[in-house]
Amino acid sequence: MRVVVPFDATDPKTRLAPVLSEAERSDFAAAMLGDVVSAVRGAGHDPVVLATEPLGERVVDAPVTVDDRPLSVAVNDALSGAAASTPVAVVMADLALATPATIERLCSGAGDVAMVPGRGAGTNALVVSHPDFRVDYHGTSYLDHLRRARDIGASVREVDSARLSTDVDEPADLTEVLVLAEGDAPGWLRDAGFRLAVTDGRVEVVREG
Amino acid sequence: MRVVVPFDATDPKTRLAPVLSEAERSDFAAAMLGDVVSAVRGAGHDPVVLATEPLGERVVDAPVTVDDRPLSVAVNDALSGAAASTPVAVVMADLALATPATIERLCSGAGDVAMVPGRGAGTNALVVSHPDFRVDYHGTSYLDHLRRARDIGASVREVDSARLSTDVDEPADLTEVLVLAEGDAPGWLRDAGFRLAVTDGRVEVVREG
Repeated sequence: MRVVVPFDATDPKTRLAPVLSEAERSDFAAAMLGDVVSAVRGAGHDPVVLATEPLGERVVDAPVTVDDRPLSVAVNDALSGAAASTPVAVVMADLALATPATIERLCSGAGDVAMVPGRGAGTNALVVSHPDFRVDYHGTSYLDHLRRARDIGASVREVDSARLSTDVDEPADLTEVLVLAEGDAPGWLRDAGFRLAVTDGRVEVVREG
Repeated sequence: MRVVVPFDATDPKTRLAPVLSEAERSDFAAAMLGDVVSAVRGAGHDPVVLATEPLGERVVDAPVTVDDRPLSVAVNDALSGAAASTPVAVVMADLALATPATIERLCSGAGDVAMVPGRGAGTNALVVSHPDFRVDYHGTSYLDHLRRARDIGASVREVDSARLSTDVDEPADLTEVLVLAEGDAPGWLRDAGFRLAVTDGRVEVVREG
C-alpha cells in the first residue's frame, strides 16, 4: 500500500521550542520521520514523504515529494487516486511510537476509511479506499472526518492504537517517546540529555546539561 | 474473568479541581466508574469494584469490596489468587473511553502479564496470569512492572489501545471524553455545560453557563 508521510520540513515542531533549539527541532523531527518510515517499511508498505520543502542534509529512506501548499490541499492531491483497489494511507511524521505491528493494524481490516484519532480530536493516521473522501486537518479534524465519511456514505473503522494516537507536539509528549518508542528518536533525546524524572509521584522529562 | 476496578471513593479526581467542585468530582468519577463497569460486563467479564470506602449514594452495577489500604497493597491482595487457570484483570475506574471491544482485546491473547501503559508511564490496565507478579503503582509504574515481569520470568504482552491508555486525570483529558467516550461520562459533562472549542486551531474544553 502507498503510505504518504506528510512532513513539515520548513519549521518543524514549533511547540517544542521551549526545550529544543531550532536546529535541534529540525534534527529531532527528522529522527521521528525516519522512525515512521522504518515502521511503514517494516509493515511491508511503501512510504512516500510529502515535504513542504527539500530535505537538504536530512536523509530519509524513502522518495520525497515536495509540495509547499497547505497540508490538507497537498494530502487531498495525494488521495485523489484512492479507491477500494488502490487504498492510500496518510501517516503523520511525528508518530514516534509507531511500530511495524501498529502500521499493519492500521492498514489491514475493513472500512472505506480507517482512522486513528489523535489527542485533541486530531487525525493522526488514515487509510482511504473511497474515491470521494477528502481531509481537512483544521481544528477537530477527527469529528469533521467522521461527518465527511457519513456524508458520502463511506464506512469508518476506528483504529484504537495508543502508539499511533500519540503525536509528539509538546514537551510533555517526550515522556511517551522515552518510555515507549523503539526507533532513533528516543536515542536522539537521550543523547541530548533528556531523562525521565519522578516528582511527587508524577513523571516528567528533564534535560541534563 | 474476574476484573477488579479500583476506585478512589474518598476524594476522587483531585486534579480536576480547577474545573469541578468536590461534589461534581464525586459524581463525574462515579459516572466514569459506571462506564468502565458496563464495558467490562459488555465484554462478558465479571467486574468487582475495589473502593477505598463505601460508595454511599453512588450506585454501581457490580459488587463492591471496601479496602482502605494503599492502592498497590489492596490490588496485590486481589492478585494473590492469580494463575494461568484463573487470571485476574485490574482496570482503573477512570478509563472513560473503555468499550466492550477494548476490554475484550485486553483480556484475550497470550502473555503471563498483559499491560496497557498509560500516559506518563503509568499502568492503566493489566491482566495477570502469573502467581508471582505484584504491582507498585508509584511513579513510572509501567517501566517498573516490565522489570518485575522480567525478574520473575513472566512474558509480557503490551496492549496498544488509545482508549485504555487514556485515564482522565486533568482538565485537558476531558477533551478525549467529549470526542470519543460512549457511556454516561460524556453526557454528564455536556449536562454540566462542557463543550469543545477551537481556538487558533487547537481544541480545548470550555464550560458554559
